[in-house]
Amino acid sequence: MSVPITPALKDELDIVIPTIRNLDFLEMWRPFFQQYHLIIVQDGDPTKTINVPEGFDYELYNRNDINRILGPKASCISFKDSACRCFGYMVSKKKYIYTIDDDCFVAKDPTGKDINALEQHIKNLLCPSTPNFFNTLYDPYREGADFVRGYPFSMREGIKTAVSHGLWLNIPDYDAPTQMVKPRERNSRYVDAVMTIPKGTLFPMCGMNLAFDRELIGPAMYFGLMGDGQPIGRYDDMWAGWCVKVICDHLGLGVKTGLPYIWHSKASNPFVNLRKEYKGIFWQEEIIPFFQAVVLPKDCTTVQKCYLYLSEQVKEKLGPIDPYFTKLADAMVTWIDAWDQINSTGTGAKLPNGAANGKA
Amino acid sequence: MSVPITPALKDELDIVIPTIRNLDFLEMWRPFFQQYHLIIVQDGDPTKTINVPEGFDYELYNRNDINRILGPKASCISFKDSACRCFGYMVSKKKYIYTIDDDCFVAKDPTGKDINALEQHIKNLLCPSTPNFFNTLYDPYREGADFVRGYPFSMREGIKTAVSHGLWLNIPDYDAPTQMVKPRERNSRYVDAVMTIPKGTLFPMCGMNLAFDRELIGPAMYFGLMGDGQPIGRYDDMWAGWCVKVICDHLGLGVKTGLPYIWHSKASNPFVNLRKEYKGIFWQEEIIPFFQAVVLPKDCTTVQKCYLYLSEQVKEKLGPIDPYFTKLADAMVTWIDAWDQINSTGTGAKLPNGAANGKA
Repeated sequence: MSVPITPALKDELDIVIPTIRNLDFLEMWRPFFQQYHLIIVQDGDPTKTINVPEGFDYELYNRNDINRILGPKASCISFKDSACRCFGYMVSKKKYIYTIDDDCFVAKDPTGKDINALEQHIKNLLCPSTPNFFNTLYDPYREGADFVRGYPFSMREGIKTAVSHGLWLNIPDYDAPTQMVKPRERNSRYVDAVMTIPKGTLFPMCGMNLAFDRELIGPAMYFGLMGDGQPIGRYDDMWAGWCVKVICDHLGLGVKTGLPYIWHSKASNPFVNLRKEYKGIFWQEEIIPFFQAVVLPKDCTTVQKCYLYLSEQVKEKLGPIDPYFTKLADAMVTWIDAWDQINSTGTGAKLPNGAANGKA
Repeated sequence: MSVPITPALKDELDIVIPTIRNLDFLEMWRPFFQQYHLIIVQDGDPTKTINVPEGFDYELYNRNDINRILGPKASCISFKDSACRCFGYMVSKKKYIYTIDDDCFVAKDPTGKDINALEQHIKNLLCPSTPNFFNTLYDPYREGADFVRGYPFSMREGIKTAVSHGLWLNIPDYDAPTQMVKPRERNSRYVDAVMTIPKGTLFPMCGMNLAFDRELIGPAMYFGLMGDGQPIGRYDDMWAGWCVKVICDHLGLGVKTGLPYIWHSKASNPFVNLRKEYKGIFWQEEIIPFFQAVVLPKDCTTVQKCYLYLSEQVKEKLGPIDPYFTKLADAMVTWIDAWDQINSTGTGAKLPNGAANGKA
């Protein structure tokens, strides 16, 4: 089953990067990224300068910018943690977002060709999803594939895709204990598939190589409170993924995973990671059943309404685990307030921009 | 995460083949099948002779054998349809079954090596399943893979795998309408993955290349009433798959799909197929919601109890669609009666064997 695809969305997609510690990063992606607008959200010391190479169209926000733009609501944006990237989702004016970490490089497909990750993400987002019934030949909308015998015809139109979750060759996205147990494991298996994650099934959403439709699901892409002053790290994208999946399932939106691969160049320090993850390892044993059980009421018809309902449930059901969840639930509300404030100014409204801005 | 695998189960696995119209079939599989016992269930005219090449250990049942062994209960076994293969599942005395169609040949992996489909199925069945949470790097128990960051540790032990569903290169398993619309489509995409189908998600189970644990799920592997005298065909494996998945989800058993591939050599006639599928195309629009909604009671603690409960529900909920479903519901009960009769004779009990039998 074939769906017409326009794989370039120059004016409809922003690339959000949490920070850039490695200048090779942008050089390597130049052929693929240069036609898009970049939003860089600096996660650390605002006095440090990020030198963006010539030829990129970008805006850059540091902590001072975030504080100035959001005022007291800036409390919902993490500091000294890549979770701050979600500020970029909020201030973007585009329909689609692609976010990538600065230690992710261009991967090669099995024929040795450079993979245009962004093009594949766009294909994924423009193709429908099929969460209500499993197709054994994977994405039925891909060239050379279709729905197999026994797939109900009434379900073949699919539903809109809100999220495209890409994978990683070389260093897999493992938690600290797995990193410690398998320090040398590398992912060399190129699985040539894109698939819809079925309705009702949660997944670990990694923010390293992720695209989404901001108009469909943007307000749920909140990366929580991590890093400086918080008891936990490395659960920012996971938190967003759990919220996003529950809301997508409720609103009838699809989540895809699989292609494209990026090349994840280096493993982060497992000891540092263990310190960040430590509490999360325990907490997730209660968080997952919570998200598996939560039922959004029928009158939650927008992402914002769903998200605010979730925040109430988080406070009530997860608050007893640790005061952190009460704080997080409040931050979820603040995030929605800030999102609506920034995004209600109408098209063409001027947003106070970041420190560096524009065509360099 | 690595699990010890013993990929040969000579004394624990039977290969069930619905019929053999093509003598090349067994010759091609000889290196892989010769060490196993074959159960051949002849689907057509019992006076025709199937010449099994020398060197294979097999038993062969035709319609006369089925009638003699099951008596009046033989009514639950389809005639002139490959659905009759489930008789082989019933009379097997082994823990595992592999079933394959006679137009399926040995496929090659991307390096050009012959794929030992049976070995991969055995690996799949011996590895646990993970239906309660999605792992983005596919089967976490495969070499070079593991659970990714954010996967709850309490779920990493997995659950027992009951079914391994393999795929097809060359001719994909399409329904008649898709065959007609895309007569030249071939599947050339080798997706190097095995994955668990999540809990609560139904899938189209194809009987062409399928393995299962008979002790865990055997009594649910009933291929229904198809072919001679029935208003429908080509839904035998689908019917089994829907029942099996619902029961696996209820009993905490896993279903895997993906590798291994076989080479599906020829497409069946789409016009003949359309005639067989015609009613099923309409009916499945009601059957799928039925299976998605059915809830098995807690006291259904065995496959048999689950299956008998399903049969009651089929009669009540699907009976109004067409008298066929009332007949099918009765046949489901007969099947369980026959299964229990054949399988209650204790180990070592002598079963009256088929026409041809033994080491040729």
